[in-house]
Amino acid sequence: MEFISGVIPKDDLTIEAVLKGDYVGQTVKMRGAVHNIRDMGEVAFVILRKAEGLVQCVYEEKAVDFDLKGLKEESAVEVLGKVVSEERAPHGFELHLTSIQVLSEPADILPIALNKYKINTSLEAKLMLRPVSLRNVTERAKFKIQEGIVRGFRDFLMTQGFTEVHTPKIVARGAEGGSNVFKLDYFNKKAELGQSPQFYKQTMVGVYDRVFEVAPVFRAEKHNTTRHLNEYVSLDFEMGYIDSFEDIMAMETGFLQYTMKLLAEEYKKELDMLEVQLPDVSRIPAVRFDKAKELVSEKYNRRIRNPFDLEPEEELLIGRYFEEEYGSDFVFVTHYPSKKRPFYAMDDPADERFTLSFDLLFRGLEVTTGGQRIHDYHEILKKMEKRGMNPADIESYLMIFRYGMPPHGGLGIGLERLTMRLLGEQNVREASLFPRDVTRLEP
Amino acid sequence: MEFISGVIPKDDLTIEAVLKGDYVGQTVKMRGAVHNIRDMGEVAFVILRKAEGLVQCVYEEKAVDFDLKGLKEESAVEVLGKVVSEERAPHGFELHLTSIQVLSEPADILPIALNKYKINTSLEAKLMLRPVSLRNVTERAKFKIQEGIVRGFRDFLMTQGFTEVHTPKIVARGAEGGSNVFKLDYFNKKAELGQSPQFYKQTMVGVYDRVFEVAPVFRAEKHNTTRHLNEYVSLDFEMGYIDSFEDIMAMETGFLQYTMKLLAEEYKKELDMLEVQLPDVSRIPAVRFDKAKELVSEKYNRRIRNPFDLEPEEELLIGRYFEEEYGSDFVFVTHYPSKKRPFYAMDDPADERFTLSFDLLFRGLEVTTGGQRIHDYHEILKKMEKRGMNPADIESYLMIFRYGMPPHGGLGIGLERLTMRLLGEQNVREASLFPRDVTRLEP
Repeated sequence: MEFISGVIPKDDLTIEAVLKGDYVGQTVKMRGAVHNIRDMGEVAFVILRKAEGLVQCVYEEKAVDFDLKGLKEESAVEVLGKVVSEERAPHGFELHLTSIQVLSEPADILPIALNKYKINTSLEAKLMLRPVSLRNVTERAKFKIQEGIVRGFRDFLMTQGFTEVHTPKIVARGAEGGSNVFKLDYFNKKAELGQSPQFYKQTMVGVYDRVFEVAPVFRAEKHNTTRHLNEYVSLDFEMGYIDSFEDIMAMETGFLQYTMKLLAEEYKKELDMLEVQLPDVSRIPAVRFDKAKELVSEKYNRRIRNPFDLEPEEELLIGRYFEEEYGSDFVFVTHYPSKKRPFYAMDDPADERFTLSFDLLFRGLEVTTGGQRIHDYHEILKKMEKRGMNPADIESYLMIFRYGMPPHGGLGIGLERLTMRLLGEQNVREASLFPRDVTRLEP
Repeated sequence: MEFISGVIPKDDLTIEAVLKGDYVGQTVKMRGAVHNIRDMGEVAFVILRKAEGLVQCVYEEKAVDFDLKGLKEESAVEVLGKVVSEERAPHGFELHLTSIQVLSEPADILPIALNKYKINTSLEAKLMLRPVSLRNVTERAKFKIQEGIVRGFRDFLMTQGFTEVHTPKIVARGAEGGSNVFKLDYFNKKAELGQSPQFYKQTMVGVYDRVFEVAPVFRAEKHNTTRHLNEYVSLDFEMGYIDSFEDIMAMETGFLQYTMKLLAEEYKKELDMLEVQLPDVSRIPAVRFDKAKELVSEKYNRRIRNPFDLEPEEELLIGRYFEEEYGSDFVFVTHYPSKKRPFYAMDDPADERFTLSFDLLFRGLEVTTGGQRIHDYHEILKKMEKRGMNPADIESYLMIFRYGMPPHGGLGIGLERLTMRLLGEQNVREASLFPRDVTRLEP
C-alpha cells in the first residue's frame, strides 16, 4: 500500500531560498516561465518569471545543453545554473545557465508584450486578454496587495475576538428590496443573489457577539461607471455590545492601521513596484453629513442642491477638503439622512431625520458604509410600518430581534474600491481580477 | 474637528482577560446575553453567554441593585460582580453580582430551550429556528471548529507560497456544461452561477504559480440527500510546476496535518464540548480506483456492477476497509475513469481510460476531488473534440493554454462535508450555518 505523508520536498529553489542561503558559486535548480529572451549574439538573457519575482539567467551558447533558438517565451522550464552576484539583476543575483529543460510550451506567441514593465495598451484590451495580461509583473502586483488587504482585515479582526462566518449568497426574494438585484429561479421558487450579508451577519452577532465575512456580493446596477462593479468582494463585520456607532469607526480605523503596517512590512516589493504611498491612518477625521456639505459649499463656492443627498462630485470635494485642511486621505462622514439609509439603520434619537451611521471616504470615494442597527423588536417593526414594509416577508430575520439582540452595528467595505484608491487607479476594474460590469461577463 | 484614532479601549472584561489577570476578590464589569436564570429562592444563578463561553453569576437579592423578576433570558446585560474562584463553575470562577444593567430586551420568550447543553429537537425544527438555535453552545461550537478548518487551509497554504485570489461567481453560460447549474439573466445575457472556480484558478496558476480561494459554489442538483447542499463553501487550490498528481495529494495531506494541529491547539474547548476525536493524518493510504473496487468486492463479498463508477455504498465500504485494515479515517482513491472526469483532467499516459486524478474519502464520504490538469493547448483541444465540445464556447479559458501553462493540478474540498465528518454528524446541513437545499431557501 502506498501512503502519502505530507508535502514532498523539492530540490528546485525559490528566489527567497537563494537570497537566504549561501548559494553564490553553486549550481542550483529553479523553475519558472520564460518571461523574456534578449539575444545579444554572444550572450543572451533569459528572464525567468516566478511567483515571487524575476530571475535573470545568462545564456552562453557553449555552456548550455539547449539551443536558444528552440526556447519560446511563456514556456515553463526547469533550469540549472550557477548563482553569481550581480547588482544590476533583480534581487542582486543571476544564474549562469548550464541546463534548460522545457516542461511545457505555448502553442502561439503572445498577442501583447507582457514582459514590459507596464502593459502599453487600453484597459479594454487588457481586460479582454485578462487571463494572460495578469502575468505582467505590475498587473499581478496589484492583486498581491489586494491579498494583503484581505489578510489584514481577517488577521486584525481575529485579534479583536471576531469569528469568521460563511453565509448563503442565494437568498429569498423580498429581503432588502430594491430593483438592483439579480433574480434567479431556485427549484421553482423566486430567489435572489445577496446584495449584502446584512441580515445574516446581524443574526450571527446573536451567536458570536462579533463576526466577519469576506465574500462576493451582487448588485444588478445598470450604470456603467468607473466606480461600480456588478459583483464585488465585500469585507463585512458586525459587532455587538457597542456603546455607540463610533465603536465601529474605531474598529475600522484599527483595521486600516493594522493593514497599512502589514502592507509596509510584507508587501514592500509590490508597493515599490507600483510606487504606492501608504496613507497616514493614525487618525481619521469624522464630520457630520450636513456639516460636510456646508464646509465644501463654503470653501468651493458650490450651492447645496439637496440637503439630504450627497452627489459623487460632493464626495470628491469632501475628500479634497479634508486632504487640504487636515492632510487626511480618509474622512468619516457621519449621520446620513434616514431616508437614504435602509430600514434597519438606527435613527439618531437627537434628530430622527438622521441616522447613527457613516460612510468612509478614501480620496473622495465611498469605500465603506456602516452604522448602528436597530436592535429592539418593536422599534424595527415601527420603522418597517412607516416604510410600508411587510414583516411577514422577512420573518426569519425579525426572529433575532423578537428573541433578543444586543446593541450592535457594523460595516461593509468594498475590497476593489479600497484597492483601487490605495493603488491610485482611476477605474475600479483595474482592481478586480475578472470584473463583472453591465457589458462584461467574460473572461 | 473630531478624530478617530483606533480601537476604543473598554473596561468590560472577556473571560480570557479574567483568567489571565489577577481579578479574584475584585469587582469587574462583564457584558453578555442572559443565557439562563435558575432561581433557587435565596439565591439565583444567572448564566451569562459570551462569545468565548459561559459565565456563572450569583445573584443574591440584597446584594444587587436590580430586581431578578425584571430580568429576562436573552436580554443583553452589563453586570458588575466580584470574581470568586469556584471549581464547579465554567472556567473555574463565578461573579457575585452587585449590579445589572439591561442593554436590550427580547420581545418574546424563546420557542425552544437553547440553554440546555444540546437542543432537544429535530434537525428540521433546529433549521427553521436557525437564527436563534445557533445561540446554543454546542451548535455554535460546530461553526467555531469550521472557522478553524478554513484558517488552517489559508494559513498552511500561505506557508507554501500560495496567493489568495477572488474570482467571479457569475459566469458565462456553457463553461463546464451539465444540467446542474443555476441560470440567471445578466443584463439580457445568459449567465450561470459558478459550480467551481476551476477555470479561474487554473488561469491564476499562470500568474502566481500557486493560488487558493475560499468561496461559495453553486450546484443545482435536485437530489435531497444527507450529503448534498445546493450552495456550499469550496476550499480550492491549484498549483503549477508539479512533478505528478501526487504533489497535490501531498499538499492536501500537509493541510490536514497543519489543521488538525491548529484545532488541537486553538479549538480544544470546542472539540471537548463536542467530544470530537481528531483523526490521525500522519499518513494517508492511496489506492487505485480499480484496486479499491476489487478490495471491497473481495472483503465484503460484493459484486462489482460497474467497473467505471463508484456508488455511495462502495465509498462507504472503501472507507470501512481502510479503517479496518490500516486504521485510517482517510483514503485517497486515485486514477478515476476518464469518462467520469471533466475534459480538463489529464489522462494517464499508461492507460488513457483512467486519469491522473483522485478523490479523498473521509470515513467513506468524498470530501475532495482533485488531480492533474491538461496543460498543453493541442491536447486539450483534442480532448474537447473527442467529447464534441466547441472551443469557441470557452475561448478565454483556452487562451491560457494557447499562450503557455506550466504542468499543474489542484483540488476542491467541500468545507461542510469535511466539517460534518470531523464532527461525526450524519447530515451535511448540521455543518452549514444556513443550508440551501431543494426545499430550503430560508432562513
